[in-house]
Amino acid sequence: MTIAVTLPSEDKVEYWCSMLRDLMPDWDIAPMAAVEDPASVEYAVVWRPATGAMKRFVNLKAIVSLGAGIDHVLTDGELPRGVPIIRTVGADLTQRMKEYVVLHVLRHHRALPEMQANEAKVVWEQIVVPPATGRRVGVMGLGNLGAVAAQALANLGFRTVGWSRGPKEVAGVTTYAGAGEFGAFLEGTEILVCLLPLTDATQGILNADTFNRLPRGASIVNAARGPHLVDRDLLAALDAGQIGGATLDVFHIEPLPEDHPFWGHPKITVTPHVASLIDAPTGSRIVATNIRAFDEHGTVPDLADAGRGY
Amino acid sequence: MTIAVTLPSEDKVEYWCSMLRDLMPDWDIAPMAAVEDPASVEYAVVWRPATGAMKRFVNLKAIVSLGAGIDHVLTDGELPRGVPIIRTVGADLTQRMKEYVVLHVLRHHRALPEMQANEAKVVWEQIVVPPATGRRVGVMGLGNLGAVAAQALANLGFRTVGWSRGPKEVAGVTTYAGAGEFGAFLEGTEILVCLLPLTDATQGILNADTFNRLPRGASIVNAARGPHLVDRDLLAALDAGQIGGATLDVFHIEPLPEDHPFWGHPKITVTPHVASLIDAPTGSRIVATNIRAFDEHGTVPDLADAGRGY
Ligand SMILES: NC(=O)c1ccc[n+]([C@@H]2O[C@H](COP(=O)([O-])OP(=O)(O)OC[C@H]3O[C@@H](n4cnc5c(N)ncnc54)[C@H](OP(=O)(O)O)[C@@H]3O)[C@@H](O)[C@H]2O)c1
Ligand SMILES: NC(=O)c1ccc[n+]([C@@H]2O[C@H](COP(=O)([O-])OP(=O)(O)OC[C@H]3O[C@@H](n4cnc5c(N)ncnc54)[C@H](OP(=O)(O)O)[C@@H]3O)[C@@H](O)[C@H]2O)c1
Repeated sequence: MTIAVTLPSEDKVEYWCSMLRDLMPDWDIAPMAAVEDPASVEYAVVWRPATGAMKRFVNLKAIVSLGAGIDHVLTDGELPRGVPIIRTVGADLTQRMKEYVVLHVLRHHRALPEMQANEAKVVWEQIVVPPATGRRVGVMGLGNLGAVAAQALANLGFRTVGWSRGPKEVAGVTTYAGAGEFGAFLEGTEILVCLLPLTDATQGILNADTFNRLPRGASIVNAARGPHLVDRDLLAALDAGQIGGATLDVFHIEPLPEDHPFWGHPKITVTPHVASLIDAPTGSRIVATNIRAFDEHGTVPDLADAGRGY
Repeated sequence: MTIAVTLPSEDKVEYWCSMLRDLMPDWDIAPMAAVEDPASVEYAVVWRPATGAMKRFVNLKAIVSLGAGIDHVLTDGELPRGVPIIRTVGADLTQRMKEYVVLHVLRHHRALPEMQANEAKVVWEQIVVPPATGRRVGVMGLGNLGAVAAQALANLGFRTVGWSRGPKEVAGVTTYAGAGEFGAFLEGTEILVCLLPLTDATQGILNADTFNRLPRGASIVNAARGPHLVDRDLLAALDAGQIGGATLDVFHIEPLPEDHPFWGHPKITVTPHVASLIDAPTGSRIVATNIRAFDEHGTVPDLADAGRGY
């Protein structure tokens, strides 16, 4: 009855282990690297596990992703086959993402980056923008996070549109579905938010072609995954003025390498993957609840759908 | 039947005049400085009028303030007595102020100023903040603008409290009233928003005493009027760490003088009085509607209440 925990930072492994031990005193909670009897491991709690890290756990019942996405698990080419993956989601995560999206959409909407550039030059210049009711904002992905974020934007007054794979209904939001409606979704969208899962179909979707379908000077907010964005296409679109500004929380490599051109770019805001950070006190409660429920019932609502690929 | 228009910028006078002429072709619309027959002036449309500018208008029926506040009119010691003042308010203004307040409260809540300071130093550091549901935000003033802003904050999940002169009910907001409950309102408030009118009772209300009743490191957002704030008290509180950061849209002197210590202060964000800018196309429609209604009925809902003093 071992739960093996792995994250890229050793400090965080210890922190999560101690939280889980408090909540699950009847289980053996161990850092994955310190597991002595691999056959005893029934659950693996992971964020960006190393390739092959789980193949020796022959009795693994489920993998718990310490995040809403499971792409960081699926990249392991030696992943034990057929083991269910449980996503870590919940009200706290949705709440945090909603805050991030509303904050950064409002920043672009209200031309705050431009005003702060003026402030740095001690320039007092009133930039007039339309009210949100005259601004079209588009959210790509209407899942757990996207639907709630889109609804919050609509509640604030934005003309909000959303895009998903299959048809969706979200109160106050005009929705589009599938590749066939992608163009109609993008047309007129002045601020584009990405909350898609990372899959073969969505990788690189924030590219020159997509940017060119937006009105000139549109803004991008990527809070999903780094590989959704083609970095060089964004840089070119910013240079050309087709894209007016971008806020990025996720990157191909994280932490974003010090010499990456996104750092210090006047039209890019870099945030360090904090859009919806799971803190250990809250996250460990969700993980403990999910493991207990899965152990009892063999399934949980937060199970990733292997068929969908995310 | 003349409407005399004055604003500090001559360009803006011309722009407002041309908008009003389109909307009110049966009226004579003139820049106040160009009025030849003062006795013909029945309405004055003003933003920050010069002292004595209106005393020669002996047939003045009403003064239209190009803003929600009337403090900029009342400072005229030679104001014709007993002339009603019409405020310019409306859905557009409320919408814009709501956006500003939500944006800047979220910025402080999510530690964005600190994260952007890290970004400038190419430092990747995840700052963990509580979700909004664990953050208490207080709005001073629950009028046209304050009530709507407070409600939007509550809708986003913040623990929202509000303070006004008399008791008020605002959905989702815990309200306090009068000087006697000011302390209880401030206690525990981590982000304090000022949306009070400027009166003798509210001038200088953002002072050392107020700051000291907030939890250490609290943030201030002033979107009301410059003289609500005691500038040197804020600077001292920021130095001492009692206040963690401030966003200021309004100042004792505007534009904020180039040598003012608020410019370039690492813990202060200066915005150039744009929280709820009335643009001429929208504002002139409200003004035209109000003047026509006042001319017909002798009153309008947006009349300032002389008894309240604001
Ligand atoms: N930055 C951060 O701090 C952070 C934190 C948490 C999560 N995230 C990321 O946020 C993203 C969203 O997470 P979530 O939990 O909301 O995901 P989710 O619940 O799985 O929802 C995914 C949404 O994307 C749509 N979608 C999937 N493939 C699509 C395609 N090819 N074309 C169009 N739409 C497609 C889905 O449509 P259907 O419903 O029609 O299938 C669904 O609406 C993920 O990438 C996750 O990794 C980032
Ligand atoms: N920065 C910008 O771009 C911008 C744009 C527009 C307006 N403003 C400013 O925003 C402020 C709010 O405007 P508004 O239209 O919402 O004002 P309002 O409708 O007149 O509301 C004023 C509110 O403040 C309360 N109040 C007044 N005196 C008080 C006192 N001594 N103690 C406690 N509460 C008191 C009132 O309480 P009661 O209802 O109980 O009397 C009322 O709730 C004004 O200062 C205005 O000049 C700024």
